Amino acid sequence: MKSFNQITEAIQQLKSNLHQNDFLLTWEKTEDELKQTLLVAEALKFLRDHNISTKVFDSGLAISNFRDNSTRTRFSFASACNLLGLEVQDLDEGKSQIAHGETVRETANMISFLTDIIGIRDDMFLGEGHTYMKEVGDALDDGFKHGVLPQRPGIVNLQCDIDHPTQAMADLMHLADYYGGLENLKGKKIAMTWAYSPSYGKPLSVPQGIIGLMTRFGMEVDLAYPEGYNLISDVVDLAGKNAAASGGKFRVVNSMDEAFRDADIVYPKSWAPFSVMQRRTPLLHNNDTAGLKALEQECLANNARFKDWECTEEKMKLTKEGKALYMHCLPADISGVSCKEGEVAESVFERYRIETYKEAGFKPYIIAAMIFNNKFKDAAGVLNKLNERGLKRILG
Amino acid sequence: MKSFNQITEAIQQLKSNLHQNDFLLTWEKTEDELKQTLLVAEALKFLRDHNISTKVFDSGLAISNFRDNSTRTRFSFASACNLLGLEVQDLDEGKSQIAHGETVRETANMISFLTDIIGIRDDMFLGEGHTYMKEVGDALDDGFKHGVLPQRPGIVNLQCDIDHPTQAMADLMHLADYYGGLENLKGKKIAMTWAYSPSYGKPLSVPQGIIGLMTRFGMEVDLAYPEGYNLISDVVDLAGKNAAASGGKFRVVNSMDEAFRDADIVYPKSWAPFSVMQRRTPLLHNNDTAGLKALEQECLANNARFKDWECTEEKMKLTKEGKALYMHCLPADISGVSCKEGEVAESVFERYRIETYKEAGFKPYIIAAMIFNNKFKDAAGVLNKLNERGLKRILG
Amino acid sequence: MKSFNQITEAIQQLKSNLHQNDFLLTWEKTEDELKQTLLVAEALKFLRDHNISTKVFDSGLAISNFRDNSTRTRFSFASACNLLGLEVQDLDEGKSQIAHGETVRETANMISFLTDIIGIRDDMFLGEGHTYMKEVGDALDDGFKHGVLPQRPGIVNLQCDIDHPTQAMADLMHLADYYGGLENLKGKKIAMTWAYSPSYGKPLSVPQGIIGLMTRFGMEVDLAYPEGYNLISDVVDLAGKNAAASGGKFRVVNSMDEAFRDADIVYPKSWAPFSVMQRRTPLLHNNDTAGLKALEQECLANNARFKDWECTEEKMKLTKEGKALYMHCLPADISGVSCKEGEVAESVFERYRIETYKEAGFKPYIIAAMIFNNKFKDAAGVLNKLNERGLKRILG
Repeated sequence: MKSFNQITEAIQQLKSNLHQNDFLLTWEKTEDELKQTLLVAEALKFLRDHNISTKVFDSGLAISNFRDNSTRTRFSFASACNLLGLEVQDLDEGKSQIAHGETVRETANMISFLTDIIGIRDDMFLGEGHTYMKEVGDALDDGFKHGVLPQRPGIVNLQCDIDHPTQAMADLMHLADYYGGLENLKGKKIAMTWAYSPSYGKPLSVPQGIIGLMTRFGMEVDLAYPEGYNLISDVVDLAGKNAAASGGKFRVVNSMDEAFRDADIVYPKSWAPFSVMQRRTPLLHNNDTAGLKALEQECLANNARFKDWECTEEKMKLTKEGKALYMHCLPADISGVSCKEGEVAESVFERYRIETYKEAGFKPYIIAAMIFNNKFKDAAGVLNKLNERGLKRILG
Repeated sequence: MKSFNQITEAIQQLKSNLHQNDFLLTWEKTEDELKQTLLVAEALKFLRDHNISTKVFDSGLAISNFRDNSTRTRFSFASACNLLGLEVQDLDEGKSQIAHGETVRETANMISFLTDIIGIRDDMFLGEGHTYMKEVGDALDDGFKHGVLPQRPGIVNLQCDIDHPTQAMADLMHLADYYGGLENLKGKKIAMTWAYSPSYGKPLSVPQGIIGLMTRFGMEVDLAYPEGYNLISDVVDLAGKNAAASGGKFRVVNSMDEAFRDADIVYPKSWAPFSVMQRRTPLLHNNDTAGLKALEQECLANNARFKDWECTEEKMKLTKEGKALYMHCLPADISGVSCKEGEVAESVFERYRIETYKEAGFKPYIIAAMIFNNKFKDAAGVLNKLNERGLKRILG
Repeated sequence: MKSFNQITEAIQQLKSNLHQNDFLLTWEKTEDELKQTLLVAEALKFLRDHNISTKVFDSGLAISNFRDNSTRTRFSFASACNLLGLEVQDLDEGKSQIAHGETVRETANMISFLTDIIGIRDDMFLGEGHTYMKEVGDALDDGFKHGVLPQRPGIVNLQCDIDHPTQAMADLMHLADYYGGLENLKGKKIAMTWAYSPSYGKPLSVPQGIIGLMTRFGMEVDLAYPEGYNLISDVVDLAGKNAAASGGKFRVVNSMDEAFRDADIVYPKSWAPFSVMQRRTPLLHNNDTAGLKALEQECLANNARFKDWECTEEKMKLTKEGKALYMHCLPADISGVSCKEGEVAESVFERYRIETYKEAGFKPYIIAAMIFNNKFKDAAGVLNKLNERGLKRILG
């Protein structure tokens, strides 16, 4: 395990421009910036594990804007903010006047007078989540420039239609932890594959986030799905370019078996085809219940043709020494547990259950690191100050 | 800009009795008390702008009780409480057992054992909001007197049926800031005028709050509305008396043009006629959907007769050098933006948009000042302590 | 009144195993442990009353999981957590993905990465609330053991189907305060009796909590109810054994008058018969609205046979010198006030109203003490540190 000083010294070696920049897509960040995010997360975890306070804010608000349901991301965001000293205020669009036609521009400013960070989840509408976050960002720039806001609140993408950076980065941190270092991921094969689920409409952001990020670190990434279950093509193109640049590999296959073969890591997860998500957006906007129901039926019928895309013990035997690490963003559709037939066999899931919990456990620190880097130019310096201050998190 | 010492010295010159007194109506407060509220708000803003912690509470709850929807006031209250170190707990009457017939007296005590402040918004029911706040206050007095409560939580009116003191005081702070001092408002003409909106039932508390407060500082206040769109007559009478006492002027006119003529400041905003609000209260109580719908139709039809009550470029030309400051509590009904025809033309709003945002930005500090003055007898002394303590709000 | 040192010295005399143990049922705790809970509550109250900060957590989350409506327990929990420095996050099962079939095991871990305490209210379903809390506890043990959680969050039962320990302990603290010491309760007669209410389905946990706890301290406990309104028989058996062990008395009678005769304390409160609660659980699970309605009608009709089970002035005359202390967990069904005919006559309630408020006021401290003892092995030592640290709760 690295010492605290090793972590902060490693941060000081990096060139990064995270300060005052929103964290929306991992591919907008340099390799150094991604590394710094991991290192700051590690440093914050180190301090908390040693009962040292990481409260850098004496007061300040963090706004959470969840435009879709969430348990784990909601609690991860709350945990991250609390860890740094920010108080979360939910912008519940049901309760608020936003539903009554306020413009994004105005609301973004109205909630930000004493706000340091805004976390947004907006993954339901293809083509809109990321755009919305940029709109909020522009509004905040405008307000800050004109003296409306005494600070420019940072934005953290808690899942959009394109990427899910807090998930993908937590997954990366888990892998670095599991394999003893980011450098050890080079050459490891990861299979990001579609899996059957008796539900539909799951966002594309997790698989996109995974192929967009893991290709940055020299990994061999296989994306597998049944014909027709495409992702956004720009992201797929980008994954190819990333792999080429990092000395890794990237390919798309239409067979789960092929992707699993010799894989070090498997990530079997359901998603809806891009074309379905495209057709779904206007239906959602129009509250077209009948149209949504029809689309769901059609999609479920199509899904049902691919029930063999399940992460079974048999398929696991295809992986490297039959021992690939199973990953999932949770909750998984576990056959015979949470559904009749699903993404993963019960025995496989159960064997890796604790690992998937640990995987999820990195998310609060990743989010805290994103906030930290957004607010502090000299991240290493502030971390050292926290360590020297040595305030106890719990008295005793 | 005043130095911090100038602010606290100015506070020390004032005679005020804000300590342990609820802030329900501006006209229950002396001129010195209103000034102290502005000065404390200024001091808190100064400290935060200089990254100095204003946390006076190490722990303690602030209860928010919103009996009507709200975004900006909700976030302003949350910001103010957080700035001082109080944690907001929402008293959501849907979730709680209050809906099941508990008396105000009991609930007020049950939520207040460790509570320092209660913010209430109750503006829907004419004749009831202010009454409810006083009832809560009486219950808290009773609980404190009998040793149930170790402290008497203060109450801040976050909008009632009569006044909207946090809005009006933030507006006043904005004007003092804009014109370089409260003393410079003397003789300035402000037009508080009704404006057309394709909605109905907007509370009377903003225009009442404005005429009740701005007449205290020697301003020339014109209240303008189409015949029938009266406010509560007691408040109108009071505005007249205020003006007489402060060396200002107050008159009621039935023409937007007349009010705009030579105005330094215009505040065009829709509200429902007093008589409509009176008829609406029993309908709301009885959940009389049909009755409410009928009243809405009648009221909208009546509104439609006054579509020319819009703050257009043409009307703005009537004002002092055509350059009056436009004010609004937001959100405004902007013609061609948030509605087809509304309170204000797009180009006028857009020119003053940033100013209206700044106007709103004073509210968190005004609310914080109201809380501060309620809890500390020696406000200037405590502010000086904060400055001397010099804790950073953000580490770095 | 005890000095602070007397309190912490008394704690040091006790043998207790509260550290890292959930507080689910008072009868799982030893007499020393119950005493320590009262003493720590007293110490925390002492410190706050002397404006000394009791913040032992610099950061950390407290999760509240309310599976039934609540005002007073919700605010008591929020107050307790805030008093110690924990931030409450509500696990609202409507908003979260829990409703979508996640297992308890997974969710318990997902919300707990940076969580110090979890408060759960689950009192609707007979046979399930307590079981659910143990399930959550097992999941947390599992996560902590396997390194998923850096700490094992403690659980506080905020009311289950069997016991309501925060209520019963607050009631005990009130009695100890009222009679000048726990030792003075020996030999006092308390009548825990059913009372008429025009509602049905009220949980059994309050009467069960009272007979399960008050029999521990040598009190003479009468449980009274109309035939058929039985409690869970295991708890009744336990109350008998407790009384035998503590030198007290316990009996069940079917007459309110008999229970009131010579009572020092009366606690008249409605509840639903055990058999009704049993029949209700599957109806609730099946959302069987018609079945629930029919059961309600049947139960209300049965209740109506016992309208004379009301705590009237006449009945109060039967008590010791006619001056028994009236207790209630609130809100009470007050005849002529909150309902036509109810649990208690208005004049009786009004005479003891302030006492019932004080009774409720102990709950935040009791909950804080339960959290405190769960997290700190050397409770007395940490309390002394807080006193020596001497941070002010409110500056000034």
